[in-house]
Amino acid sequence: MSLAIICSGGDAPGMNPAIKKFVDYVYEKGETPYFVFNGLDGLIDGQISPAKHKDVAGIVHRGGAIIRSSRSKRFYEYEYRKKAYENLRKHDISGLVMLGGDGSFRAMDRLSSEFELNFVGIPTTIDNDIYGTDTCIGVDTALNVIRDALDKIRDTASTFSRAFVVEVMGRECGYLAAVSAITSGAEICLIPEAEFNKSVALKHLKKEIAEGRNYILSIVSEGTKMTAELARWLEKEIGMETRITVLGHIQRGGSPTVNDRMLAFEFTVRAVDHLLGSKNSNKVMVIEHGRYGMREIEEVVERKYRIDPELLGMLNLLD
Amino acid sequence: MSLAIICSGGDAPGMNPAIKKFVDYVYEKGETPYFVFNGLDGLIDGQISPAKHKDVAGIVHRGGAIIRSSRSKRFYEYEYRKKAYENLRKHDISGLVMLGGDGSFRAMDRLSSEFELNFVGIPTTIDNDIYGTDTCIGVDTALNVIRDALDKIRDTASTFSRAFVVEVMGRECGYLAAVSAITSGAEICLIPEAEFNKSVALKHLKKEIAEGRNYILSIVSEGTKMTAELARWLEKEIGMETRITVLGHIQRGGSPTVNDRMLAFEFTVRAVDHLLGSKNSNKVMVIEHGRYGMREIEEVVERKYRIDPELLGMLNLLD
Amino acid sequence: MSLAIICSGGDAPGMNPAIKKFVDYVYEKGETPYFVFNGLDGLIDGQISPAKHKDVAGIVHRGGAIIRSSRSKRFYEYEYRKKAYENLRKHDISGLVMLGGDGSFRAMDRLSSEFELNFVGIPTTIDNDIYGTDTCIGVDTALNVIRDALDKIRDTASTFSRAFVVEVMGRECGYLAAVSAITSGAEICLIPEAEFNKSVALKHLKKEIAEGRNYILSIVSEGTKMTAELARWLEKEIGMETRITVLGHIQRGGSPTVNDRMLAFEFTVRAVDHLLGSKNSNKVMVIEHGRYGMREIEEVVERKYRIDPELLGMLNLLD
Amino acid sequence: MSLAIICSGGDAPGMNPAIKKFVDYVYEKGETPYFVFNGLDGLIDGQISPAKHKDVAGIVHRGGAIIRSSRSKRFYEYEYRKKAYENLRKHDISGLVMLGGDGSFRAMDRLSSEFELNFVGIPTTIDNDIYGTDTCIGVDTALNVIRDALDKIRDTASTFSRAFVVEVMGRECGYLAAVSAITSGAEICLIPEAEFNKSVALKHLKKEIAEGRNYILSIVSEGTKMTAELARWLEKEIGMETRITVLGHIQRGGSPTVNDRMLAFEFTVRAVDHLLGSKNSNKVMVIEHGRYGMREIEEVVERKYRIDPELLGMLNLLD
Repeated sequence: MSLAIICSGGDAPGMNPAIKKFVDYVYEKGETPYFVFNGLDGLIDGQISPAKHKDVAGIVHRGGAIIRSSRSKRFYEYEYRKKAYENLRKHDISGLVMLGGDGSFRAMDRLSSEFELNFVGIPTTIDNDIYGTDTCIGVDTALNVIRDALDKIRDTASTFSRAFVVEVMGRECGYLAAVSAITSGAEICLIPEAEFNKSVALKHLKKEIAEGRNYILSIVSEGTKMTAELARWLEKEIGMETRITVLGHIQRGGSPTVNDRMLAFEFTVRAVDHLLGSKNSNKVMVIEHGRYGMREIEEVVERKYRIDPELLGMLNLLD
Repeated sequence: MSLAIICSGGDAPGMNPAIKKFVDYVYEKGETPYFVFNGLDGLIDGQISPAKHKDVAGIVHRGGAIIRSSRSKRFYEYEYRKKAYENLRKHDISGLVMLGGDGSFRAMDRLSSEFELNFVGIPTTIDNDIYGTDTCIGVDTALNVIRDALDKIRDTASTFSRAFVVEVMGRECGYLAAVSAITSGAEICLIPEAEFNKSVALKHLKKEIAEGRNYILSIVSEGTKMTAELARWLEKEIGMETRITVLGHIQRGGSPTVNDRMLAFEFTVRAVDHLLGSKNSNKVMVIEHGRYGMREIEEVVERKYRIDPELLGMLNLLD
Repeated sequence: MSLAIICSGGDAPGMNPAIKKFVDYVYEKGETPYFVFNGLDGLIDGQISPAKHKDVAGIVHRGGAIIRSSRSKRFYEYEYRKKAYENLRKHDISGLVMLGGDGSFRAMDRLSSEFELNFVGIPTTIDNDIYGTDTCIGVDTALNVIRDALDKIRDTASTFSRAFVVEVMGRECGYLAAVSAITSGAEICLIPEAEFNKSVALKHLKKEIAEGRNYILSIVSEGTKMTAELARWLEKEIGMETRITVLGHIQRGGSPTVNDRMLAFEFTVRAVDHLLGSKNSNKVMVIEHGRYGMREIEEVVERKYRIDPELLGMLNLLD
Repeated sequence: MSLAIICSGGDAPGMNPAIKKFVDYVYEKGETPYFVFNGLDGLIDGQISPAKHKDVAGIVHRGGAIIRSSRSKRFYEYEYRKKAYENLRKHDISGLVMLGGDGSFRAMDRLSSEFELNFVGIPTTIDNDIYGTDTCIGVDTALNVIRDALDKIRDTASTFSRAFVVEVMGRECGYLAAVSAITSGAEICLIPEAEFNKSVALKHLKKEIAEGRNYILSIVSEGTKMTAELARWLEKEIGMETRITVLGHIQRGGSPTVNDRMLAFEFTVRAVDHLLGSKNSNKVMVIEHGRYGMREIEEVVERKYRIDPELLGMLNLLD
């Protein structure tokens, strides 16, 4: 039996460990692993080839994804989805593992409504915005890259009376920002899920400064588009020189943490096991309260991830 | 009400975030936080003083513990335990949070059988060898420090035909070694919980070498005391020059990971909440399948931690 | 004899090792070390106190500066400079070591023209823009922090067809950007010292893309204010989605590298030796071609640092 | 004209940047670059092939060496040296760049006395034990890897009253140990170049402990073979529990620092330039006081590297 693996959408640290485990484990099960290169665009164009052990030697600690990824516009058109499906058939691939996020799962949900597909999606995104799973491959590494940056800024912050605004990733989901603010002890955190209460923040900061605080650390989700505005507000209202850091794609790089590698291995082994024993099944791997499971793809893409209210509660401690 | 925090036994990254949260949260609750310095020896000697906000400013990213720790021999004698207890009374401390491991909890179990104690232990040890909790403060940081070392060794390993033996911590528990071996793709892993099957390993390695493998990475728990022997075995049986690395206390250092900070915060807040609402309670915080809870201290110290059989199963994939 | 140390202007990694060596070495010489806190503002306000060994214990690996720094506007007025001078007299401080950059040395040059001063400036700035010295304390650490960020971006860059624009520090001096671009193999580098030749760059990039290049890494000095413009240009002319990273104050943080610690030790020992044997001397420590020396402060502040033409030549290899 | 590059002996971080620059620069000069794989053993066996741009894409931040290295016993025999030479002729290779250390240069000195060779050696070893050059490729990265380990140990050291013995590389040369001890503020440093004066050390440590010191950090060169003995001595004479760390090959791994990359680029460009303009020349690249130059290979291999007495002087400050 032939199984294939594909990456889709933004990359996340941990893709390579998942790809390695996929190849090793499929061989262990006596089946044949395939790579789909360059995401859904590659699937449309038939960039598919058998995977070998040596292709995945020494990649477990590399960021990125050796089979590359893409965002495909063509996949929105039926004609190209049909081509993609036919390419899988052509190689007699009976099951597909996809490392991707919400948007990519949506694309596969569409495909599976049109063609017979045996598919497991593995939540892989640093944004942690997928319904039904507590975490995704890449989140832990991204959080620790941000932590390292904040540790560095804190070192220098205490030397000079200044405010710092650090923009982290997260388009519609403030998870990275919230956890980073909590674990680094930031004074301000702006996320898409909550309004920034300026008067409360101002009162709180003025009190802290009166008591001796001499610098301010703020974390902002890129999705709020408030980075520049917050910096101006701090300069004007608090009167501290303010410096901006935009972490950008540093957050997608670096050697995957132990947690992300473990999650990648566990998800992948379970996904392969499922594909080997099923037909026309369309699932997404999840982890909830430390237990692995699967959900129907429609459920995952139809519902919206909501940030844990307890996490938001811990944030309130800051204001 | 006055609550105190104490560190006992070997230190672990994440102690400082727990100490900071303890001070901040006790104040938030309107109560008075105290430090006990230098572990149980300090408790015997009355090294106790009120904690201030500024004592814990900027410590969240520091390894070690600002209130220091110790292993106390005197605490084995009743007379000194009595003195310790009286020192708590003297400062009117009605609840004690201890960051420590198995041995330290055992000491407190003894104390609580002799005197009225309101106590919560927080599992804090990189060994991850405490019954009833899936993980402890410090484990995630230690695993990622080991990962960083193994990533470096792997870089150089592929350049030269050599075998590497890396000794990691873990006296009676092979958790660090096992997870490190799995997530770094080591070829050999020796832990106290499992016998090293030389003939199986030899057959497996010879096959891999015949297929092109040109280096071997092995992880050894210090508790096995097999580091030197394994190196000799590799040189003799495999015929590869072998190099030893003993990571030692590097594994206890470094900035705590996001997971360890979060765990420290969650454990500490719950511990304080419990102490504020209880009397003569002797608990240990635990996390099981992602849910926080508490266990009776007798249960934790009477039973022995067993490594997850599934983890051992993943290791078998290596041989 | 009493000697004091002061930090002025933007902080740089390596200040703490210099401060530690100052205290240890002055004591070793049998004299008394003083701290001036909070830079020139602190000097004006008399924030001066004797330094003790234990003040500098365990600080060698910390970023920032334990005695803090500032930019003083008041120091531009004679009345405040007089006050600053009188504060030094009041404590009977006969020599002053300043860790700072161009602007701070200019301030001291002014002071020394008005009052009798025994002064040594130690070039301390990540910008590396001081005349007469090949490097400054902090430059090596900043370069390696940037390198770490670029290594992470490169990991992810090769997974997705994208362009990256990374803004690094450097107001009037492109040293950090140039060395980072050379050692990370960036395709584009914009610095204040050289005009960006768009047509040459476009031709070069198009050729590379035709030959298979699928991502572009660009480094920009903040002083060029070209970050956003370059990103737009890449999107429009090259047609690659472009992502911006602004490293900001991460570059001032982190544990000082071995080179920066060594430089801090060597500069500080020589500065103290000079102060102990001189009067009304106003010097700046320099290192040229691996040899330590001193220059008159007027010479350093009157002349302008020029980036090594050979370095610019290596950059041209990129276009 | 065809030029080849070869790695020999122990690997060092910075080999990959040198290999990349070699390929890029030889092409830039309009000539043809070759790889010799697996060191001198590979040269004997004719493992030589033309290098392409894409072979060296994205390797600048990788430890190790993509063309691998070896220590060849066969090269001691004339017959194999002859074979090696003939393999170079067969591919019409008129110049050879070797990344290696003392032993490898000795081998090439021998070869060049027997056959006509156009050769430049580039000092590449973390030991920094090559005559005539202030530093070698790999030294700066190794020093910073050691620093990172010592920073971690220091964090934990201050929590518990303990002594730490850290063994670093350096067979006959204590450079790594000495610089690490100086820049990390270690209390004890044992190197092959100096005898360990136990009575002086004991007196010094006892005084420090009396004054409040509660932990001891010691650095030992592996070449002294004193690691275990020092640990026993500390336990017995000082009475502190002592823990050993043997860093091993971690020191050869990790992403090359900016300095090591720059050194690799500068050495390689100069080596290629020289080979293109010379015949039967046998040189070694050096850097002295920040200036690049070349020395005759006989001079380099006949003389012995001596550690800078000033460095030893700075060490004496420790005792």
